[in-house]
This record gives sequence, C-alpha cells and structure tokens, in this order.
Amino acid sequence: MTEESVVNEKSAEHMAKDHREISISQFFEKNRHLLGYDNKIKALLTIIKEGVDNALDATEEARILPDIYIKIEEIDKETYRIVIRDNGPGIIRAQISKIFGKLLYGSKFHRLRQSRGQQGIGISGAVLYAQLTTGESTKILTSTGKGKTHKIEMKIDVKTNEPKILKDEVIDGKEWKGTQITIVVEGIYREHKQSVIEYLKQTAISNPFANITFDSPNGRVEFKRAVDHLPKEPKEIKPHLYGIEVGIMTRMLQETKGRSILGFLTTEFSRVGKKSAEDICKKAGIDDKISPKKIEHSQIVEMVKAIKEVKLSRPPTDCLSPLTQELVEAGLSKELNPEFVTSISRPPTVYRGWPFQIEVGIAYGGSIKEASVMRLANRVPLLYQSGDCAISKAVAGVDWKRYGLSGDKIPDAPVTIFVHMSSVWVPFTSESKEAIASYTTIIKEIKLALQDCARKLSIYLSGIRKAERIAEKRRIYEKYAHETAVALNELTGDEKEKIEKAILKIVEEKWGEIEQELIEENDKETGVEKEDENK
Amino acid sequence: MTEESVVNEKSAEHMAKDHREISISQFFEKNRHLLGYDNKIKALLTIIKEGVDNALDATEEARILPDIYIKIEEIDKETYRIVIRDNGPGIIRAQISKIFGKLLYGSKFHRLRQSRGQQGIGISGAVLYAQLTTGESTKILTSTGKGKTHKIEMKIDVKTNEPKILKDEVIDGKEWKGTQITIVVEGIYREHKQSVIEYLKQTAISNPFANITFDSPNGRVEFKRAVDHLPKEPKEIKPHLYGIEVGIMTRMLQETKGRSILGFLTTEFSRVGKKSAEDICKKAGIDDKISPKKIEHSQIVEMVKAIKEVKLSRPPTDCLSPLTQELVEAGLSKELNPEFVTSISRPPTVYRGWPFQIEVGIAYGGSIKEASVMRLANRVPLLYQSGDCAISKAVAGVDWKRYGLSGDKIPDAPVTIFVHMSSVWVPFTSESKEAIASYTTIIKEIKLALQDCARKLSIYLSGIRKAERIAEKRRIYEKYAHETAVALNELTGDEKEKIEKAILKIVEEKWGEIEQELIEENDKETGVEKEDENK
Repeated sequence: MTEESVVNEKSAEHMAKDHREISISQFFEKNRHLLGYDNKIKALLTIIKEGVDNALDATEEARILPDIYIKIEEIDKETYRIVIRDNGPGIIRAQISKIFGKLLYGSKFHRLRQSRGQQGIGISGAVLYAQLTTGESTKILTSTGKGKTHKIEMKIDVKTNEPKILKDEVIDGKEWKGTQITIVVEGIYREHKQSVIEYLKQTAISNPFANITFDSPNGRVEFKRAVDHLPKEPKEIKPHLYGIEVGIMTRMLQETKGRSILGFLTTEFSRVGKKSAEDICKKAGIDDKISPKKIEHSQIVEMVKAIKEVKLSRPPTDCLSPLTQELVEAGLSKELNPEFVTSISRPPTVYRGWPFQIEVGIAYGGSIKEASVMRLANRVPLLYQSGDCAISKAVAGVDWKRYGLSGDKIPDAPVTIFVHMSSVWVPFTSESKEAIASYTTIIKEIKLALQDCARKLSIYLSGIRKAERIAEKRRIYEKYAHETAVALNELTGDEKEKIEKAILKIVEEKWGEIEQELIEENDKETGVEKEDENK
Repeated sequence: MTEESVVNEKSAEHMAKDHREISISQFFEKNRHLLGYDNKIKALLTIIKEGVDNALDATEEARILPDIYIKIEEIDKETYRIVIRDNGPGIIRAQISKIFGKLLYGSKFHRLRQSRGQQGIGISGAVLYAQLTTGESTKILTSTGKGKTHKIEMKIDVKTNEPKILKDEVIDGKEWKGTQITIVVEGIYREHKQSVIEYLKQTAISNPFANITFDSPNGRVEFKRAVDHLPKEPKEIKPHLYGIEVGIMTRMLQETKGRSILGFLTTEFSRVGKKSAEDICKKAGIDDKISPKKIEHSQIVEMVKAIKEVKLSRPPTDCLSPLTQELVEAGLSKELNPEFVTSISRPPTVYRGWPFQIEVGIAYGGSIKEASVMRLANRVPLLYQSGDCAISKAVAGVDWKRYGLSGDKIPDAPVTIFVHMSSVWVPFTSESKEAIASYTTIIKEIKLALQDCARKLSIYLSGIRKAERIAEKRRIYEKYAHETAVALNELTGDEKEKIEKAILKIVEEKWGEIEQELIEENDKETGVEKEDENK
C-alpha cells in the first residue's frame, strides 16, 4: 500500500453517512428510458399505450364492449395535452389516487390471469413523466354510474412514491360510467412506423371488438368495431409446480392454511392430484402428513428436486383468452383489406410453469404493399426493440423459400405477418414492455404457427400461379389454332374460320385432360407438402 | 352492447378488491432477468460482477489499493458457493442489513460522482436470487479494523423489501479490515466469452491497480497489480442547469435554503455565476429577489425555457475519474501482451447536463489472435447486450478501411479495441447494466476517440509494411548484385566476387536515397493523414 493511500484512507463511518433509501419513483424518474420515455416522440406513444391498455383491460374485465376516445392536441411548442376516455366500470374513490399516483401498485401483478397490464407501473409512470417534463398535474374524471363523478387532480410525491392530491371534487347529476384522464407532457407528434397511429391501427386489428376514435393533431381517425362480442373471459388459476423454486416454495409453506404437506400440494397448486402429491413426498423422503410449517429447509430443497421427477398435468388454460382465428382474420381483414388471409391458433402450452398460447395470421396482397411483422402480447402491439424479440427471431428462423416465398429473414412479398402471444405472464425484456424474452419453447411455438400459415399461403399462391399458367397455355393453344387454320387454308383451300373452329373444339373437348396434366406438373415444381411438426 | 356482456358486467367495487402494492423485491423476484439472472450461466457472472464492483468501489472510495479474493465452488449439481472478500474499510453494523437486504438502497444513486454502482440494486439482487433458487441465506463477515468482526446471516423479506436477520454475532480479537460475503446459488460454471473469467480479465485490464485472486472450480487464476497508485479521487458535484426539467426544478425550489431565486440558482447548481442567474431571471420575467418558495408554476416553466437560451459554463469534470492513457496502456499490456498499444483520453464533455469522458485503447498483435471489443463503463466490463450498446454502434460506425484495416463493422485484424466511458451517471439500457444507451453525443465522442487510435495504429502498421517493403527491395538489389556480377564475369572475365562487392558497395552508399524514395512512395499509397474532427 502506498504512503498516499494510507494518508487519505477513509473510514467506514465516514462512508456510511451517505446511505439512503431510493424510492421507486425516484429510480424511474432518473431512469425514465426504462419505462419507454427515451425521447419526445416515443413519450407520446408510451402514454397512449399505457392509457389505452388500461382502458381495454378495464372494459374487458367488466365485460363491456369498449368505446375508447383519444385526443392529442398541441398546446405549445413540443407540449401536448392528451385525453383518453373509456366506457369502463369507473374507479372507486379509494383506488383512484393509488392507481395513478403510486408506482408498483395494481391488481394484475399478483394474479395468474391474462391481462394487458401486469406490472403496476404503466399509468403512474405517465403521471410521473408529465410532472417531470411540464410540471403539470394529471386530471382524472371517473364515475361508477351512480350519478356521481369524481374529479381529481394529482401528482406523485417522488420521495415517498405516494399520491399527492391537489384537487378532489364530486360532481353530481351526470349519469355516465367510465374514466377519463388528461395528461400534459413534453412530446413530438409524428405519424411514422413506430407512432401512435400505427399503435392504434394494430390495436384495432388485435381488438376488433373495440371502437376507437382518435382526434389527432391532423384530424379524426376512426377504427370501427368489427365484431360485437368479447373474447372469452380468462379465469384466474393457481400456480403450477413446474415453475416453483425453493424461495417461493418456502414462502408458500409458511403462508398456507393446509394442515399437511399433502393438503398443501393438492390445494395451493394447479392440477396436483393426491397420487402426484404422494409421489413427490415419497421421492423427497417426507412424511406427507407432516404440517407445512414444520418442514425443514433441506426437505424443501428435496421437494423441489422431486417435483422435477414427477409427471404432472399441465396447468389449466382457461386463464388465457386467445383471440381465436375468427378475430385474428376479422381484425386483419377490416384494417388491411387483403386479397387473402389465413390464421392459426396453436394449442396452449407452458414455459416455466406459465401457460401461454400463440396465434398467427398472415394477410396477403390487397392494400398491403410490402412485408411487415406485427408483434403482439396479450393483444397489445409491440413497436420497439424488435431485434431483441422472440417473435422477430422466430420469423427470421422460418425458411420462407420452402413456401415459395423469396427473401431471407422476412418474405419478399406483400404480406403482413401477425403474431400474438397470450399468457398469464409475458416475459418482457424491460419495464417498457416492448419485446418478448427469447425462451426456446416460445420461439418454437411461434415457428410452428408461422410454418402452418406459410404453408396455407403457399397453397393459395401456387393456386394463383397454377391458374395463371393454365390460362397462359390455353392462350397459346388458341393462338396456335388460328395459325394452324391459316396454314391449312393455304394448303387445302378450306375455309379458315371453319378449320379454326374445328381445332378450338378439339382443344375445348381435350381441355380437362390437359389441365390435369398441367396441375400435376405445377405441383411437382413448387413442391407443396405438409411439414413434419416435430422437425 | 350485447345482451351477454350486460349480464356479466362487473362493478368497479368488485374490481377494486384485488388492488395491492407490489414491493420492489417482489417485482424483481418475478422479473429477475431484468437484473441479469436470465439463466444459470449468466447468474454466476452477475453475482461476481455485483460483488467485485462493490469491493472495488469500497476500496477505491476509502483510497485503499484493492486486494480482491473470489472463490467459486460447486457444492452440489448446479449449486455453487461463492465467496467474495475485499480489503476495504468494512461496513458499520447499522448499514450492513440494509445494504444487503433492501433493494433500492445505497449512497451512489443520489450523489453526482463517478462510481461503479449507481442504482442500489446490485448486491441485494444477488441475495434475493440466492434465497429464491437455493433458499440459502447470505453470510456477511465485516470489520472496520477495531478488532471486532460482525458475522451476519440474512435474507430479504420480499413482501416488505426489508432485511430479515437470521444470525447476528460479534467476534472479538481478530485484527483485519474488509468485507467478505458468501452466497449459495443455482448456477452453471463455464469459461467462454461471456464468463466470470473474461469479466475478471477485463476488470484487471481496466483496474490495473487491483490485485485479483480467483479460485475457480478449475483452479487458481491470479491477476496481479500492475501499477501501485489509484486513479485520482472523483469529487462530488452539484447538478448542472442544462439537465434540469420542470419537475426537478419545482422540487428543488421547494427544498432550497436559498432566500432569493438569485441565491438559489448560484448556490444549488454547478457553475452558475451571478450574471447568468440574472440573465435567466430576466429572460423568464422573474424578479430575481423573490423567494424560491413563492415562485409560481408558470414562472418555473418560463425559467426552464430561459435556461436553454442562456450560455452556461460546462459542469466541472473533477467528478470524473478517468483511467488516463497510462493506466489504459498498462492494463492492456499486462493482460494481452500485445506487439503494439495506443490510447487516447478525450477531454470530458456533457450529455443531458451530466459530465462524461471517453477513453479508447487499441492493442495489436502479440498474444492477440483475433478482433474483439471490450466495452467498459466506470471501469466495469460489459459482457452482454452488445448489439444495443452505444460502444458497439460507434465501433461499427468507423470506416476501418480508411486506416488500412479491412473488415466491415470491426477490423479484420488481431486487435483488441478497449472503450471506456466514465460518467457520474451512465445511461444503462436496463437494470442489469449491460449496455449504454445510444445518446448521439456519446456515440460521437467514442467515434472520435476510435478514429484517433485507429490513425495511430495505421501509422504503426504502415511502418511495419514500409520496413517490410524496404527490406524486400534491398533483397532484390542484393540478388541483382549477384546476378549482375555473374553476367559481368562472363562478359569481362573479371572476378565475380570483386564485381559483386563493388555493386553492393554502391547499393550501400546509395541506400539512404533509395530508402527515402521508398518511404515517400509508401506514404502516398497508404494515404495516412490526420482526420478532421469536425467531420
């Protein structure tokens, strides 16, 4: 150790004095790019996304067909007033301030059931961004439909991560149900590929049961409802043993009301029968009648190991609410007006104990002019970080040439590839929820679904090509008939028209055979066949 | 609205009952991939990284030359015991439990001064991961050098995000200073490119004043200290006005002890003189003698606007502790043993009001066999998410061909490109701190530094090529001398040896001139020249 370093050495006591707690609001105020507020253009998109996601979750959970109204208005240079209104059930007074004024608060984090939100950060993050950039409070109007409207103005106290209420009024007399928020933020409005308008278009496709009206700075855009029923309601499920680690198991054992390990295993988890529970206890060397509170650490470790060796039923999948092929195709058709559309809804499966389901749609031609991929998670469009996303990786992993489509990572054709993951817990790569983490099982499921749709598109396209080839051949026969007639006329002096008619008649009569030959030849060339799913 | 949806409609009251607070520990328990615990291989690296970063921060802050000991031991299948020990100042009892047992707690988040840690999440995240995967508590031994050692065993109560102390002992008699932590986790030990060993090697390069001993599952590896002094100590600075938004300004106005706006501006911020403060107030239409507490919202907005129009001095840069060219080159030389090394330390500059500084080193040849990039932030190696990182983008943005190096995004040559960003606040793209966000100013600075080093390498390489060419020419002259001698001997009958000697003498005498010509010709061909920084 050098002389100098000894002289300047600081004590632990000296260093301790600066230690302090960091509130989650302070953390995200300084790290707001983690919530999607990287820049002023993206900021507007993030706010709309958080507001609309909440509006759709609220209406859907209350089983109401959503009518969503959005307005973005420039009120000063790079300063916008945003209004988002829904026809949901409204919010009771006791919840308003925490929902909008506290980061990490909500109903969706703890329960195992599909919803758009899952972190309890989104809308309060928007309130935080507003007060940070313009200093403006957020205004909330909400009514649960009993003639009373709550009007609240609020901010977040970043030091405590608690709501700070500035105005709290009750307005009587107006009969309505729903919630409206008004947020004033710094931003820049653009209409490019990663914009509010693209987000709303994709939202309209993936939520075709919603009516969305958008008053943009450039005028009104309407996305009309295409189907008048909601997807089936997702049910809450219990956790599945396959996803349980030692830490969670320890906590659950302490908290359970089950009196024996057997009771604990069969009541606290999804689909664990008496037989499986006994198997687990036996393999772990535990008496299955022992109280969960009395089980020791080493026994918990053994139990978690034993779980991996016991075959368990998959978790129930009624916690998911997939779009179904009907809605995927309805959504793509209404917004893209394609020449051809196909889709598949894969059977639900599981990653890390969490159920999920993949749906893919491919729309071709019509008003679609180039290839693009729409990524969605729990019906929410993902517009950023595509390079990091499991969906992009799966799309790039498909051998499109095999399906008669040129192009390397994405087909070089006028197609929109729509990929939707439904899950009780989407593994996003960041708090801004822009990309799905690359679990092997998830990528594999997406690939299988893509291949299925690609095959159907390929058959359609080969049908077009077939029809074109056949028509072309027929044109040649017909042309040949005319020329033969001319030649025979010169040779025999017979009437040209008569000869031509005779030849055309032969072509017409023989056409069935000729066509069949052409079809077989064509199929051999394009090589369309059903792929093995286990590859 | 359809009949069915009316029937099933749920009330706001019904929906309110599930709302709950989410503790930050619960949040990261479920989202542990955000902290770098994506998989078992990466988990070991993340823990070592968090532990070693803390050890280096503690020793450096206390001005002690670091001696760091690390041990990774497999104690069961995919289960490892990790020990990390430093010779730092130790931790006083009151702080131990919160530092290790509470996420979002620390000294580094609030102050503006360069350090490795900045979020107050790292080491408590490791404790959380241990209890989640193996259920084991974390053991801490620490002494501040007064003969007392604290021995603590602890976990985190995830529901409250508070430490849960399981053992709390004081051991007397042993004289030492420092901290040792023992963590037992699920993991997989590998020695590939993104591994613990690579992290330690890069740490040794960027912290050549540290002694690092690593007992790996495959044996001991030592990284010896190469210089025996620490980099200069960074000073804490005040915030700079250029980075201040309305929200922060509002809070600071409420909290200040300054009695007038003038006093507030000149004392709470970096480098704001009386003249600048008066200018800001004048442009914002505010009386500069008014109390900060009395200023209204619209005035704050005007003030923030005015700040953008007033020219302010840049913040002081003594909050930074760059490596200096000496340490960059010492580090690269000691670990890579290259044939050639060059470096540059750019002058400090500012992004969003935060000072930062870029240093680049390029090492060539020797034991380096292929091209690679080392990315570092505040002396910490970044091993993941390179595609997202400002450093990778800057490297790919350099036209390496211009410097006589083939290759597209990275030179196709045996080079190690070392890029280091020092800052009071590194804008990481996630909590796992693996990539630097792509601010234009940051990318530009890195590019300039890379170009400077590339030019120096190019001159060196052209020197080698030059020497090679000249030697080759000389060999040709010499060969020519011999052949000429043979021919002349046949022609004139003179002695071959005599003729050859005479020719060689002429070559020798004329060599200076020949060489100069060759050098000029060579320079013209390779086109080495100083680049314009403003391009």
